[in-house]
Amino acid sequence: SIDAARLLDRIEQLGQIGRDGGDRLVRLAGSDEDKRGRDALVSWMKEANLEVAVDKIGNIFGIWRASSEDDQAPVMVGSHIDTVIDAGVYDGCYGVLSGIEVIQTLQAAGFVPSRPIVVAAFTNEEGVRYTPDMMGSLVYAGGLSVEEALSSVGTDGSVLGEELERIGYAGCEEPGFLKPHAYVELHIEQGPVLEKEGIQIGAVENLQGISWQRITIEGVANHAGTTPISMRSDAGYAASRVISFLRDRATSSQTPTVATVGCISFEPNAVNIIPSRAIFTVDLRDPNEHSLQAEEAALAAFLTDLAAAEGVKIATERMARFEPVTFDATIVKIVEAASEQRGLTSKRMTSGAGHDAQMIARICPAAMIFVPSIGGISHNPREFTSGPDLVAGANVLLDVISNLASD
Amino acid sequence: SIDAARLLDRIEQLGQIGRDGGDRLVRLAGSDEDKRGRDALVSWMKEANLEVAVDKIGNIFGIWRASSEDDQAPVMVGSHIDTVIDAGVYDGCYGVLSGIEVIQTLQAAGFVPSRPIVVAAFTNEEGVRYTPDMMGSLVYAGGLSVEEALSSVGTDGSVLGEELERIGYAGCEEPGFLKPHAYVELHIEQGPVLEKEGIQIGAVENLQGISWQRITIEGVANHAGTTPISMRSDAGYAASRVISFLRDRATSSQTPTVATVGCISFEPNAVNIIPSRAIFTVDLRDPNEHSLQAEEAALAAFLTDLAAAEGVKIATERMARFEPVTFDATIVKIVEAASEQRGLTSKRMTSGAGHDAQMIARICPAAMIFVPSIGGISHNPREFTSGPDLVAGANVLLDVISNLASD
Ligand SMILES: NC(=O)NCCC(=O)O
Ligand SMILES: NC(=O)NCCC(=O)O
Repeated sequence: SIDAARLLDRIEQLGQIGRDGGDRLVRLAGSDEDKRGRDALVSWMKEANLEVAVDKIGNIFGIWRASSEDDQAPVMVGSHIDTVIDAGVYDGCYGVLSGIEVIQTLQAAGFVPSRPIVVAAFTNEEGVRYTPDMMGSLVYAGGLSVEEALSSVGTDGSVLGEELERIGYAGCEEPGFLKPHAYVELHIEQGPVLEKEGIQIGAVENLQGISWQRITIEGVANHAGTTPISMRSDAGYAASRVISFLRDRATSSQTPTVATVGCISFEPNAVNIIPSRAIFTVDLRDPNEHSLQAEEAALAAFLTDLAAAEGVKIATERMARFEPVTFDATIVKIVEAASEQRGLTSKRMTSGAGHDAQMIARICPAAMIFVPSIGGISHNPREFTSGPDLVAGANVLLDVISNLASD
Repeated sequence: SIDAARLLDRIEQLGQIGRDGGDRLVRLAGSDEDKRGRDALVSWMKEANLEVAVDKIGNIFGIWRASSEDDQAPVMVGSHIDTVIDAGVYDGCYGVLSGIEVIQTLQAAGFVPSRPIVVAAFTNEEGVRYTPDMMGSLVYAGGLSVEEALSSVGTDGSVLGEELERIGYAGCEEPGFLKPHAYVELHIEQGPVLEKEGIQIGAVENLQGISWQRITIEGVANHAGTTPISMRSDAGYAASRVISFLRDRATSSQTPTVATVGCISFEPNAVNIIPSRAIFTVDLRDPNEHSLQAEEAALAAFLTDLAAAEGVKIATERMARFEPVTFDATIVKIVEAASEQRGLTSKRMTSGAGHDAQMIARICPAAMIFVPSIGGISHNPREFTSGPDLVAGANVLLDVISNLASD
């Protein structure tokens, strides 16, 4: 079994890196805080005698070449260490640090894998500063060119490639340089299912599709006091109609689609001026591609009607679009079996969040292991998973990796 | 009659001061752009041989003491030269520049007033950078202490008193130092009524009440992909419900209340995070104090229900609150008579916008003169009033001022 204290201590330490003035954890991809997190990660990889490699999109790999079978495709375990704004400490970091922990445990046990074991930390999984999310793993899997990714402009106007250069993590490996035999990602659920049902391990068999759009509504700025309601083209009001429409559909429709408007801004953004412009994002998710497309179409139709009814112009821009992914059935079974052998309850489940596994599944068999999130809270400082649950998940990962690295 | 070319040329010149990189007119109170506008105004006042005085809140006065009757209460004509963001060129400036024009015309005609005539430009009428709006005239009328006004913190974190010092317009006169005999303000309508009805002059007999609030909704940040709709406390969605509620009431109710949400922000404002906080402004206006209070109460009741239904906390903060004002019936009649004598059509009307006249009406008889706004558009670069309409309004002002300055 893994060294529980060492794992929990590293999670704690990494969670202290990137606190802002208000003590919020903000370690956005490519930032100074990300650099400090990466430096800590590399030092732990070195402590585990791993060979450290960085690719052109800044993904970090800790490679354990333990045997003469160096030319074998490696088993890869990974996740990310970038965070959202005002984040919890587990999202992503738990999976990466558990990967190092698993390797150190196998090393200490004298285990001789029949192929290399690699722990990966992918760049910009959160997609908060640069879109799309899961960028590093997407590039690694060949779904986005390195050039395009590096030229991404962030919400703060920064360019990802320049930021990676600046913080010293613009590596020279070609993304995809190690083609994995299999990929496993351990992650907190970030949703309420496991806790609610009292189950310790999620054997993640699929992951929902993700559709991100930016919507811009153009109305007419006018005076708040003198303009009769009937003469208004109020971009802000039109935006509020879209938010309510999405919620109504998500609540009433038969599909499990969830919809979120997380970002908004008005122009000119003055108390006594009818907004001439509203810009906001829409995040739609559904495990079924067909119903995700139906929701996208319903939104598009609503926007067309709204533009006519409110006398506004509406433009949409695609920020990210990923189809649902079905994970490798064999690995899912290995996860279930490993849980059972450890006396842990498990259930097959869908991932509500996007993960690097979703991208790496394009190039090799992949699956995920979830542990419970208390109250289903994530992307929030109150994100929490108990120590025993974290340790249980890492032990399942240990067994799954040693299994996959033995064939 | 006034010198049409001189007036239109000054409006044009002042409208070029404060253009930003994107050629938008942004001359917010206390800014560098405001300083340049003020400097131009002062130079025109000096050209008209006016004695220039500045009070502690930065209001600028151009005083024409033409006779031995210097101790008489002056007739005051005024408005403001600060602008909103991406403004038109007429709002406020037209009234101030017409005041100088009227004085120069009277001077040239050898008119000898029986009391001083003063043209005033009040500080921060727009209320965009600092609240409340009509701040300079409110302080002048004794409705807000100089100290409180000078310590106002702007949307950009600046302090009005420091900004006035910096731009050299923190004067030494005590606000209210000249107690007017009467106050007249010439302004563009900023609404659609006059143009729609084909009328040249509005004799403004009252002005609606203004209620500004800032509303903060606190929800719970959580993951956009994993959090079931039923478990969300979405501050952004709750804000959209308020915007829709206000619109529905404004459209359906029997009251003429108009409601506008002009400013909004979400926190943490990320595409894949349910907003934990939404902050937005509500601008309610009604010519009837009773129905304005009823709308405020309806909003408060809705917020209480919404907080319970959505599991959010809602706090409201008062930004500005002004009761409706009834202008002086005698001056309104003088405006009507002057219009008729000039062969101009006129109608009595309500002002939808707030104006400095609303504040100065607290300390002396006051009224306003409106000219048509094409399409009712204002607080927008497309704000437009034709040259002949501008000249007609200034000539009515000339007649009204010479009348008031003769008794
Ligand atoms: N796991 C996770 O939070 N990923 C971020 C991408 C997303 O699902 O929004
Ligand atoms: N006239 C004018 O636009 N005043 C600004 C204050 C307001 O009415 O919102």
